[in-house]
Amino acid sequence: MQPEDLILVSVDDHVIEPPHMFEGRLPAKYADKAPRFIRRPDGTMAWVYEGVEVPNVGLNAVAGRPPSEFGFEPVCIEEIREGCYDIHARVKDMDANGLLGSMCFPSFVRFCGQLFLENGDRDQSTAMVRAYNDWHVDEWAGTYPGRCIPLAIPILWDPELAAEEVRRLARKGCHAVTFSSNPYALGLPSLYTDHWDPLWEACQDEGTVVCMHLGSSSQTPSTSPDGPIEVIYSLSPIGLIEAATDILWSPMFRKFPGLRVALSEGGIGWVPYFLERVDYIYRHTQHWSGMDLGGRLPSEIFKEHVIVCFIDDEVGIENRHRMNIDNITWECDYPHSDTTWPQAPEIAMRYLSSLPEEEIDKITHLNAMRHFQYDPFRHIPREEAKAGALRRRAEGWDISIQAKAHLRPATASA
Amino acid sequence: MQPEDLILVSVDDHVIEPPHMFEGRLPAKYADKAPRFIRRPDGTMAWVYEGVEVPNVGLNAVAGRPPSEFGFEPVCIEEIREGCYDIHARVKDMDANGLLGSMCFPSFVRFCGQLFLENGDRDQSTAMVRAYNDWHVDEWAGTYPGRCIPLAIPILWDPELAAEEVRRLARKGCHAVTFSSNPYALGLPSLYTDHWDPLWEACQDEGTVVCMHLGSSSQTPSTSPDGPIEVIYSLSPIGLIEAATDILWSPMFRKFPGLRVALSEGGIGWVPYFLERVDYIYRHTQHWSGMDLGGRLPSEIFKEHVIVCFIDDEVGIENRHRMNIDNITWECDYPHSDTTWPQAPEIAMRYLSSLPEEEIDKITHLNAMRHFQYDPFRHIPREEAKAGALRRRAEGWDISIQAKAHLRPATASA
Repeated sequence: MQPEDLILVSVDDHVIEPPHMFEGRLPAKYADKAPRFIRRPDGTMAWVYEGVEVPNVGLNAVAGRPPSEFGFEPVCIEEIREGCYDIHARVKDMDANGLLGSMCFPSFVRFCGQLFLENGDRDQSTAMVRAYNDWHVDEWAGTYPGRCIPLAIPILWDPELAAEEVRRLARKGCHAVTFSSNPYALGLPSLYTDHWDPLWEACQDEGTVVCMHLGSSSQTPSTSPDGPIEVIYSLSPIGLIEAATDILWSPMFRKFPGLRVALSEGGIGWVPYFLERVDYIYRHTQHWSGMDLGGRLPSEIFKEHVIVCFIDDEVGIENRHRMNIDNITWECDYPHSDTTWPQAPEIAMRYLSSLPEEEIDKITHLNAMRHFQYDPFRHIPREEAKAGALRRRAEGWDISIQAKAHLRPATASA
Repeated sequence: MQPEDLILVSVDDHVIEPPHMFEGRLPAKYADKAPRFIRRPDGTMAWVYEGVEVPNVGLNAVAGRPPSEFGFEPVCIEEIREGCYDIHARVKDMDANGLLGSMCFPSFVRFCGQLFLENGDRDQSTAMVRAYNDWHVDEWAGTYPGRCIPLAIPILWDPELAAEEVRRLARKGCHAVTFSSNPYALGLPSLYTDHWDPLWEACQDEGTVVCMHLGSSSQTPSTSPDGPIEVIYSLSPIGLIEAATDILWSPMFRKFPGLRVALSEGGIGWVPYFLERVDYIYRHTQHWSGMDLGGRLPSEIFKEHVIVCFIDDEVGIENRHRMNIDNITWECDYPHSDTTWPQAPEIAMRYLSSLPEEEIDKITHLNAMRHFQYDPFRHIPREEAKAGALRRRAEGWDISIQAKAHLRPATASA
């Protein structure tokens, strides 16, 4: 198998929402309450909702820029690739990267829609979430059938409404919802309460995967304020071990045996150690702590219910025999700084090449297709879905690395 | 190789300090300021220093009790094995476990002596640290030559005095000092400052290993207040990834190329993933973040300077080719609840049996001997140091599992 033969479905990419997204999608009484995309007097850009400015339009959208410009958080839309926010350009960028399918997490509303939890009255913000999801499902994922796995944001302040929204979107073909890796950290009831049961029940009924992305606890890993940026990068993916811990010891999977959680951008290389450790713990604590997993080991529960993914993780692939091969998925992380775009097939093949073809297919696309009820082959024949075929469609599309720092207002006016 | 052929040196055990430890070791003016071991009116016990009561005498010292009693924090000395606090009984417990050597972390003063940082005037607490260390080196480690690796606690409030204490103890043969896995969390300057340079310099000069034990940041891992005890166990060892992150990105190893840090009770199964991840990060960030590791990869720095250890870690052993085999050590964790006592040889052999004898010897004792300048064979011939030979010396020593809960005051008086 060669890189051009891979069929790549990424379960973690990012959309930078375009300015028009709420147009025509809100009830009349909230139409003028929608978040607005503005250019500020200094030339930088922001979204504004309920008077709160969210200044970073790009959220680390550095794909296509030289590494020396990484770390410059984009402040105006001119700095980022059109593929970040325009679905037509995005599909071109996907083609050029040999990427068949992509599930895109939100940006300005934050990983699980915290913006709407923190601002606006509840009824209004509920309307915003629904409008956001309609845009995402109908336009972002709907324009090019078979290219995007739709992903909803949740109504965080009301589990009944959240459940209803999951059911509504499932009817539109959306079987993934973002959620916080630690709702307690957002000021909400923890995963140890029964508060979220209506939402879990809806997800179980509809076969909707709960996606916990790194950062969705609204907490940035830090050891001291004078640490370098590398500390955040070092501790971020593995930080999802906290979510993995909570979902294992919480009763949620025992109450909802059909529920599945995806740890998004969590990496996989730490998982084998974690599974050995939690089993060791359970063997020691079950005699006195009151924990009762119903005759199962925590590692068994994890392997059944938890979907993991990775960008570049040789250690994890080498240790896949200690995980459930049917729950390992792959991601591209476009357009963030960890992305392998536009060399995803070649980079993935570096550590996949030694695997049996059956395992490669599971990891690169079959697992994602099954878990997210996503069938690209209804729209694109399998042969045309391979990296090499997609790339041929994008011939002439400019993927050259381009400096953009000079386009930001502070630089331009300096 | 059979379990009885192992030569086992544990780099992480725990001493429950005995009541008499400060007697005759303090300057006259501080003699009556020493921490006192008291029995309170309700029958429970505590150490008292500067009016502060430290109630838990045993700190999870559950070795030898039935699993159903684990989780009962001992509150009186009758509940714990004599081997916890009496060196003669300890050596018997070591013999019965086939354990040749042991490095013991402190208990009531906490992992890096936080008690003396938080209480007492500086001059007085300095005297306490010195007395503590004299007791530890002279009595605890000195009574049975070749059986204990001495380990000092630091003078946390003054790096110059801390350096002087390291040098003083090195002259007494002590080449290990505990330290906080995150001094910033203790209210002290972080590892990114040059504040600790005098201490690092002394450790480098004297070949003294800086030991960062889990919990030495005084922070208990938690995701929400309603989580079960299993959350703490799940996140504790791997929590040392924060210390691993700090020491790699801090300039300490670049400034002190002879310095070594041990991550105590940190486990090893997560290390291969971590090393792959930090290299990935550095390749991406070095172009813009200002981080300069002098042409080396973070994984290379880790492999040279960082000593890791494990209790029971099949994943880590299976992935040892991704670590430095010369820096992997083993621990027994007596008398805490994770301990493998008194079956350490059998449990260790479960995953060591497939290794070449040379690697087994490095992991079980040679690495610890070299790093801590510890030479038990000066006192005990190699043949007599093996697990089987030691166990024969302990024939008749009672290691039966014994219920003790009925001995605690609340139970006794109920």
